[in-house]
Amino acid sequence: MARKLTTRLTEFLNIDHPILLAPMDKVAGGRLAAAVSAAGGLGLIGGGYGDRDWLEAALADAGNQDVGIGFITWSAKQNPNVIDYALSRNPKALMVSFGDADDVIRAAKERNIPTLWQVQRLEQAKQAIEAGTDILVVQGQEAGGHGMDRGLTALLPAIRDLAGPDQMIAAAGGIADGRGLASALMLGADGVLMGTRFWASTEAVGSDAAKNKLVEMAGDDTIRTKVFDVARNVDWPCYFTGRVGRNAFSDEWHDDIETLKSNAERESLRYENTDPDDFSTRVVIAGEAVDLIDAIEPAGAIIEKTVAEAVSLLGQAPRFVTSAG
Amino acid sequence: MARKLTTRLTEFLNIDHPILLAPMDKVAGGRLAAAVSAAGGLGLIGGGYGDRDWLEAALADAGNQDVGIGFITWSAKQNPNVIDYALSRNPKALMVSFGDADDVIRAAKERNIPTLWQVQRLEQAKQAIEAGTDILVVQGQEAGGHGMDRGLTALLPAIRDLAGPDQMIAAAGGIADGRGLASALMLGADGVLMGTRFWASTEAVGSDAAKNKLVEMAGDDTIRTKVFDVARNVDWPCYFTGRVGRNAFSDEWHDDIETLKSNAERESLRYENTDPDDFSTRVVIAGEAVDLIDAIEPAGAIIEKTVAEAVSLLGQAPRFVTSAG
Repeated sequence: MARKLTTRLTEFLNIDHPILLAPMDKVAGGRLAAAVSAAGGLGLIGGGYGDRDWLEAALADAGNQDVGIGFITWSAKQNPNVIDYALSRNPKALMVSFGDADDVIRAAKERNIPTLWQVQRLEQAKQAIEAGTDILVVQGQEAGGHGMDRGLTALLPAIRDLAGPDQMIAAAGGIADGRGLASALMLGADGVLMGTRFWASTEAVGSDAAKNKLVEMAGDDTIRTKVFDVARNVDWPCYFTGRVGRNAFSDEWHDDIETLKSNAERESLRYENTDPDDFSTRVVIAGEAVDLIDAIEPAGAIIEKTVAEAVSLLGQAPRFVTSAG
Repeated sequence: MARKLTTRLTEFLNIDHPILLAPMDKVAGGRLAAAVSAAGGLGLIGGGYGDRDWLEAALADAGNQDVGIGFITWSAKQNPNVIDYALSRNPKALMVSFGDADDVIRAAKERNIPTLWQVQRLEQAKQAIEAGTDILVVQGQEAGGHGMDRGLTALLPAIRDLAGPDQMIAAAGGIADGRGLASALMLGADGVLMGTRFWASTEAVGSDAAKNKLVEMAGDDTIRTKVFDVARNVDWPCYFTGRVGRNAFSDEWHDDIETLKSNAERESLRYENTDPDDFSTRVVIAGEAVDLIDAIEPAGAIIEKTVAEAVSLLGQAPRFVTSAG
């Protein structure tokens, strides 16, 4: 008989498994979000920096499947229409990351849209809790894409202690299978958010070449850097870095960001004029969990495998406990 | 009835609980190591850089309690007598970290002394496995003191996959309570190694002022840096950094290590001439798990609490699993 994993997060969101799709900017399109929701998780479209036309098309691609939407707060707020538009589409949930989102959370709550706020430090968690966020997403530095420097293992229980037992929490960063899911539940999470694992899925928006690169890549070859923000001309707040696969371009500039900034115009042009599948220059965003990814698979198969592995680990966990006498 | 946690690691080492004391340089003295072993874990004396006189005194402090010894490989090997001396004392186990230790592992195995090799990257894990190490210690960047940049959440399962199911593995970095222990077992570890949590213990060698600092400190205020290696004139290989509590001294130099190196003599003198309990200059080595530490406690109480919490979490883990239909 099939098993599912139930936590208060699955009950709150009315989903089968506590697995959330990280709303990866323009990678988590409507097809991927719909596939994750259809498989019993929560699909979140990657509204990212706030491109309304892209978002509208992604929502169309999701069809009738209930999906949520996520944004990069500091950027999307520069274009307030896009957040209003997202709320007007009544998504299954609204997720914000990277910046002050008190007003966004308030607006979502007024419409009874479940809210998620991704945080990387205890101060941010405090702010998100005070804003009344339904689900904190605690992101470790293992994560692909933007984030900060704390590792999940100690950050998650620290934020659990800060938030108290009643706060729902999802863990993010470095999780790509049932081991990561089971482990997050032991640390005090009510579910997980997975990015890189779903980036290497059939339904993710992206070239086969980029996805194959993820399958080949080693976690030890990923770094947190600001190189590609400069190259792509994106003005991220200074304390966020992006985890990516190292390449010749990052090797050239990572230790000398100031010189790169001084040559930003020239280097941006060089970057933009490079073949999108030339990964010696072009970035492949990837988390440390790439080691755990052996194949590009449909999102539904990823969820099924992850749940089965976590079910087995959690179901057998009492075997470690024995009588002392 | 009292419960214990049994894994193949506890059976191999003939201990009650899969909790190992990180052999923190000159902090894990004989009293602390003996207290951890007496409480059912494995105490490892912090032989560190290889000071034989200190080690001899620490072994005397451990009395009749069976304890192991750990070394900083690259440094201790510069003084081969100290490793030979350690082996001649027939410790319960020998642990090595940070450097090529094939010869040390071989020498320990010839004497049937159980071996542990702490690694931070997959390449290192491969080397340690090939050397025949009994227990790999997989250390995440959350750890206090020296280490590298990979987070535990993704590194541990990646090394488990590399090593295969038969290799014993202990997890290190960011673990300070039963949540961390239970979570490590789900990730594929057979036990854990805890440092910072035992540093904040009654038996650790160190001033009350330093230990109280650990209790006050926030994980968000720790950083990985090379500042204090330069200040203390210790010639660590370039890829290792040390996690410590930020202070005025590290704030001054962390982003400008090259200038610090150019002024190493002057700054070392300034550092050494500072009151040891002036933590605006002097380092307090600490991992991200400091958030989880509320009090200085006896090592035995720490183990008891950690085991009880992990027993409860693992015992109840099947509650997440429900029937789908």
